[in-house]
Amino acid sequence: MKTFLGKNFLLSNDVAKALYHEYAAKLPIIDYHCHVSPKEIAEDKRYSSITELWLGGDHYKWRAMRLCGVPEEYITGNASDYDKFKAYCACMPKLIGNPLYHWSHLELQRYFDCDLIINEQNCDAIWTMCNDKLAEPEMSVRNIIKNSNVKLLCTTDDPADTLEWHKMLAEDDSFDVKVLPAFRPDKGVNINKHGIADYYRKLGEAAGIEITDFDSLKAAYVNRLDYFASLGCKTADHGFDEYREYIESNPYEAGEIMKKAVATDGDITDEELYKFKTELLTFLAAEYKKRGFVMQIHFGVLRNQNSRMFEKLGPDTGFDTLGNFDMITPLSKLLNRMDSKDGLPRTILYSINGNDNLAVASLCGCFSLSGDGKPKVVQGSGWWFNDNLDGMRRQMTDFANVSSLGNFLGMLTDSRSFISYTRHEYFRRILCDLIGRWVENGEFPCEMDTLAELVADICYNNTKNFFGFDII
Amino acid sequence: MKTFLGKNFLLSNDVAKALYHEYAAKLPIIDYHCHVSPKEIAEDKRYSSITELWLGGDHYKWRAMRLCGVPEEYITGNASDYDKFKAYCACMPKLIGNPLYHWSHLELQRYFDCDLIINEQNCDAIWTMCNDKLAEPEMSVRNIIKNSNVKLLCTTDDPADTLEWHKMLAEDDSFDVKVLPAFRPDKGVNINKHGIADYYRKLGEAAGIEITDFDSLKAAYVNRLDYFASLGCKTADHGFDEYREYIESNPYEAGEIMKKAVATDGDITDEELYKFKTELLTFLAAEYKKRGFVMQIHFGVLRNQNSRMFEKLGPDTGFDTLGNFDMITPLSKLLNRMDSKDGLPRTILYSINGNDNLAVASLCGCFSLSGDGKPKVVQGSGWWFNDNLDGMRRQMTDFANVSSLGNFLGMLTDSRSFISYTRHEYFRRILCDLIGRWVENGEFPCEMDTLAELVADICYNNTKNFFGFDII
Amino acid sequence: MKTFLGKNFLLSNDVAKALYHEYAAKLPIIDYHCHVSPKEIAEDKRYSSITELWLGGDHYKWRAMRLCGVPEEYITGNASDYDKFKAYCACMPKLIGNPLYHWSHLELQRYFDCDLIINEQNCDAIWTMCNDKLAEPEMSVRNIIKNSNVKLLCTTDDPADTLEWHKMLAEDDSFDVKVLPAFRPDKGVNINKHGIADYYRKLGEAAGIEITDFDSLKAAYVNRLDYFASLGCKTADHGFDEYREYIESNPYEAGEIMKKAVATDGDITDEELYKFKTELLTFLAAEYKKRGFVMQIHFGVLRNQNSRMFEKLGPDTGFDTLGNFDMITPLSKLLNRMDSKDGLPRTILYSINGNDNLAVASLCGCFSLSGDGKPKVVQGSGWWFNDNLDGMRRQMTDFANVSSLGNFLGMLTDSRSFISYTRHEYFRRILCDLIGRWVENGEFPCEMDTLAELVADICYNNTKNFFGFDII
Repeated sequence: MKTFLGKNFLLSNDVAKALYHEYAAKLPIIDYHCHVSPKEIAEDKRYSSITELWLGGDHYKWRAMRLCGVPEEYITGNASDYDKFKAYCACMPKLIGNPLYHWSHLELQRYFDCDLIINEQNCDAIWTMCNDKLAEPEMSVRNIIKNSNVKLLCTTDDPADTLEWHKMLAEDDSFDVKVLPAFRPDKGVNINKHGIADYYRKLGEAAGIEITDFDSLKAAYVNRLDYFASLGCKTADHGFDEYREYIESNPYEAGEIMKKAVATDGDITDEELYKFKTELLTFLAAEYKKRGFVMQIHFGVLRNQNSRMFEKLGPDTGFDTLGNFDMITPLSKLLNRMDSKDGLPRTILYSINGNDNLAVASLCGCFSLSGDGKPKVVQGSGWWFNDNLDGMRRQMTDFANVSSLGNFLGMLTDSRSFISYTRHEYFRRILCDLIGRWVENGEFPCEMDTLAELVADICYNNTKNFFGFDII
Repeated sequence: MKTFLGKNFLLSNDVAKALYHEYAAKLPIIDYHCHVSPKEIAEDKRYSSITELWLGGDHYKWRAMRLCGVPEEYITGNASDYDKFKAYCACMPKLIGNPLYHWSHLELQRYFDCDLIINEQNCDAIWTMCNDKLAEPEMSVRNIIKNSNVKLLCTTDDPADTLEWHKMLAEDDSFDVKVLPAFRPDKGVNINKHGIADYYRKLGEAAGIEITDFDSLKAAYVNRLDYFASLGCKTADHGFDEYREYIESNPYEAGEIMKKAVATDGDITDEELYKFKTELLTFLAAEYKKRGFVMQIHFGVLRNQNSRMFEKLGPDTGFDTLGNFDMITPLSKLLNRMDSKDGLPRTILYSINGNDNLAVASLCGCFSLSGDGKPKVVQGSGWWFNDNLDGMRRQMTDFANVSSLGNFLGMLTDSRSFISYTRHEYFRRILCDLIGRWVENGEFPCEMDTLAELVADICYNNTKNFFGFDII
Repeated sequence: MKTFLGKNFLLSNDVAKALYHEYAAKLPIIDYHCHVSPKEIAEDKRYSSITELWLGGDHYKWRAMRLCGVPEEYITGNASDYDKFKAYCACMPKLIGNPLYHWSHLELQRYFDCDLIINEQNCDAIWTMCNDKLAEPEMSVRNIIKNSNVKLLCTTDDPADTLEWHKMLAEDDSFDVKVLPAFRPDKGVNINKHGIADYYRKLGEAAGIEITDFDSLKAAYVNRLDYFASLGCKTADHGFDEYREYIESNPYEAGEIMKKAVATDGDITDEELYKFKTELLTFLAAEYKKRGFVMQIHFGVLRNQNSRMFEKLGPDTGFDTLGNFDMITPLSKLLNRMDSKDGLPRTILYSINGNDNLAVASLCGCFSLSGDGKPKVVQGSGWWFNDNLDGMRRQMTDFANVSSLGNFLGMLTDSRSFISYTRHEYFRRILCDLIGRWVENGEFPCEMDTLAELVADICYNNTKNFFGFDII
């Protein structure tokens, strides 16, 4: 029996152990898709308690607690930090097999030197150890990032954002981790949502352009794209919550639909929504291509499914579900439209539903025509609902089967927390184990140089080169 | 090499063996979802032959025989019991990897003390052993149930049913296993089927209410729900054969659609069907909530796909197929409607297609807000087409990954047979093996108390508490 | 650690080794579904270089090279044979986990006695070894086929084809491998494609019947079916690229739609397309049944998704993707229509998307009513995007779980190459390993006679009997 979460956690064979400990573990981290706050980095935030750090905004944990029947008071409500933490500890044994079980224990080990098993009995000991540790300077946000061997991270930012904290960070010589913005225009794309007129007003103000029609909307985006690029931005991120049908469109039609949406506070038909998206997304993609931005598209979830809780808590509070509908058909047509107009940038496709793995990986093959030694359209890693042992193994196996694993882009955290970098460790262990198994089974030759190169590429180099990040 | 179906069948490691033999195997059974006949329990039925017991009504076996090219005469036709049994035995080796292979052998071992391999050569020996055994009093229905350590079972009953056998059983002190009815209103919900007018007449008679419109239909259901509750009913069961789109509705519209369906013998559009269901299901859910009933919803199959055989043999004869269409989108909206009106009862969602596992498990998280220490909406176990080694492993792994396995409700048989309780054994072995592997791999700490509690909860306690069954 | 691609490649246990080496490896091959050229067999083609053989027409390899960022010049362009081969070798290590890695090395070992690892460094040595070998007479197409122990193969042929090469081969006593045509009427079924009028003209000429309406179209098909049958044809093959909805139809309507399609060069609505297919496919199925043809239907892909490359390179050049849409609903209704009219032939269903496995295997059960000892409608093997370790394991496991593995029809290559017969070896190793694991785990009894029979049936006998091939 292996020690729980021991040195060789998830490493079932000798090749895996060698690959992980000698190569993968030492590689730096590029976290190119996450949701941490640039303000908290700029201000070098400190945490008052493990509750603030762990349960302050992590809807993965909130959801798990609700599934264990914990009252909302102990989740997003007014209970004390200690009581919330205790409630979380009490849930832990029931989360056997859930990635939160591994993540939470890994974070305790790596950031708090704490080997205790999380449960109700150990709650007080862990509470004290963690809070004592958080009082030390090395647990400031910047120190956590540096000590996690992170070289570069991309936050997620609205086009209307001033990026003031990014500017501050770029000018601050005392912190040598690159913190870049990522351009996420979802709010302006999803014009069937309430508040679209307000949003366009805000976006126009940021751009110094009054948005009155489709042309001025595009002009505002161009302005913001240039601004983001001036601060080192290298990527845009799109949540394709729903684009169930590809419907051909044109700038005139998109403009008319936009006017209707603004006038009615988002009251448009699905057909209108899809038409508008077809046109606007094609426009944005071409702009990304001009600037060398990587376009990230993720889909496979239905968001904010519980209206009652959405009204109370807003989005990203744990009320999203995996969807099971066909996104391949419309997405393929949209990518083809972009490609036909010579406006398809480098692209990463992610489905949050692992059922789509094989289809997504094979779809990429239809548009991956760079000819420059790197893929052009590539399936991204398994995160959110896929971010677990089985989900990542499945994603990598499926990817290898219908694509080229040696060109895979490795992991991202998608996290709101600064101590989620252990998810890169988790991923790397799983990757090394998978490759090691293949070698041990005689499915790939045992050439350590080749294997080490593959691991380094997947964990670090491919991402650096795909995005063109200016780091060593 | 392990002995075929030996003591440690499916238990690949020491933790699994300890968990199974010391804990899981000893736990009683709650079979809260099955299709056995309450009449046969009340009358303490005896079987004339293994053919009657095994092949009398088991469409899983019929289907397998057809797939092996057995003529219908030996399946549902006029061949002798012996010839039918022989035909089944001859198919067995071809069913390698099929759960019927394991179930049939497990049933032979557990109920007939017979270790023989089922094949054409052993047919006569098994025939004799089984039929001799069936002649013994311990093989009466009640004795089988008692000797299987069943504490409680729920049959499946139409709202128009008199429940006379349940009443008889409730009053019979000589049998201390609880036999409760379950409320299955599918016939009145699927108003696009032939015979709907007749059915409403029958339902009205049972309720003592003439059903002439939507209000009287609801009144009739209320009457029957109260009657079912008076006999200890704790759950309702819905087969969502097809509810492909959520369409908003209201009582008036539902009433108009109902009138049309009654007048035309079910000739309504899909849109009308979905509207009617939206309204009626919301009503029923709220009534379940009032009475503390658990609402079970299963989907993912297309029923009665072979018209020719449907005309000959009727439903539930082996002509259903897994479907591969999106039920998450409409179901999520329907649950949200119920929740918004404060009418969402405790609910179990099952997809018979394992592809839906992750989506279903995650959907539950959007509505699981009880705050009372138990989940509110939970994915159920893998039965019917999922009820096999891989299907159950996948269901539990997927469930663990996106939900809370410690709150899982364990197994049900969905069976028409009284010797299917071995499927609980099958499930428990798989569960213990899965947990044991995690522990052996260092993915969960080896704390036997915690593990034993998890196993006891999943196999027994959670079900008891979720339904609120009044047993020890 | 096992040797890479050694004697016991993929065989993880003793039962598997015995089954493979003593039984499976010795069985002849029936390759009933492939795309090799009958002309090249008739002419006993020789290859000028490994590039011609490997990269001349294999869009699986082209796709992989594009995913590695290789410029098109080295794929389908004007680079030299050597440079193309070198580019492929350089990609190889990045294809870890991809079936091309195994296939390419297996082909090197089996056909070229070459144990070298394919990579940039070994490129020249492999280039020389392979080209030297190709100069030997044993590497002519006919000798390759004979030495691969192939007894029979079916090419894929358009109904308008003269089958001249098949006639020549049938009359050639010097080659005793049966080479049969397969009837693939897709071009006449997909009437929404450009060039449909031309195609019907060509088909009419082949049949000696002027095609002016639905009746003459049917008459032309009857003529060609008889002609194909006269040359030993035993099967028809349908690519159901898109049949997203079953819509009832009749010959009159089909005729009107056909006229519109011919007049507009394929400009018809989806609804019209589906109606036309419903009627024509039902007609063809009944004709297959009359002649004892097996109907093969494959689906789950979206073809030619990249318009730009389609214009340059045409179809089958590596720009297809897996789809993720529901084919079960329309297919079930179509099969039921055929069955209801007593016109359902023996049928094989394949989904190229492994997600559909369980649904497809279960769908077959609804129509598999032969009663003659063989299944009637059966799921076929995992090829194209499924043709890899995981895809085949999944297909066989899913098939076993909901169908009868002992009646499975084994492997096909779907290949354009004459050295792909190693895919049968690949399949057989996986099959033996799977069965061996079950036995080692105590999930099936260790009766070697039964196991050997299962293996022989699945690898050879079932196919021979299902199609009624006249071979030993």
